[in-house]
Amino acid sequence: MDAITILGLIAGALTTLSFAPQVAKAWRTRSTTDLSLAMLILLLTGILLWLAYGVAKGDLAIIAANGATAVLIALILSVKARHG
Amino acid sequence: MDAITILGLIAGALTTLSFAPQVAKAWRTRSTTDLSLAMLILLLTGILLWLAYGVAKGDLAIIAANGATAVLIALILSVKARHG
Repeated sequence: MDAITILGLIAGALTTLSFAPQVAKAWRTRSTTDLSLAMLILLLTGILLWLAYGVAKGDLAIIAANGATAVLIALILSVKARHG
Repeated sequence: MDAITILGLIAGALTTLSFAPQVAKAWRTRSTTDLSLAMLILLLTGILLWLAYGVAKGDLAIIAANGATAVLIALILSVKARHG
């Protein structure tokens, strides 16, 4: 694995992990009132397009980061859908 | 410009724009108490690494998206630094 790919994987780990505290908080409190539904939908759509972009370019760092982040955002959305 | 780059630019526009309502809200209310400082720092660091990754790969979509998002997150951080 080359240095640039490793840089991308570190970048992806940071941006993906930055959402983890929000997922934990939403899961624990079952409260997502202060989170904008429009923001979550816009973000999830964008991340799924980044995933498609990564697949189209065969870019491992983009695929890994956006695949993982999509799961986290979907978890937040599922809490919001059930508990508002 | 090829179709894959256009896909990346659309993906970047969506993920970047998803932060705009949060910037507007923070700027208007001067209140960022509910936003985690650790999350903002982690996210900004990751985005700056993505920017470096984009420059290293000469990837226009990654450079544009992460350059714009870095400015937005920095604005949120500056409100948090001044108003807590």
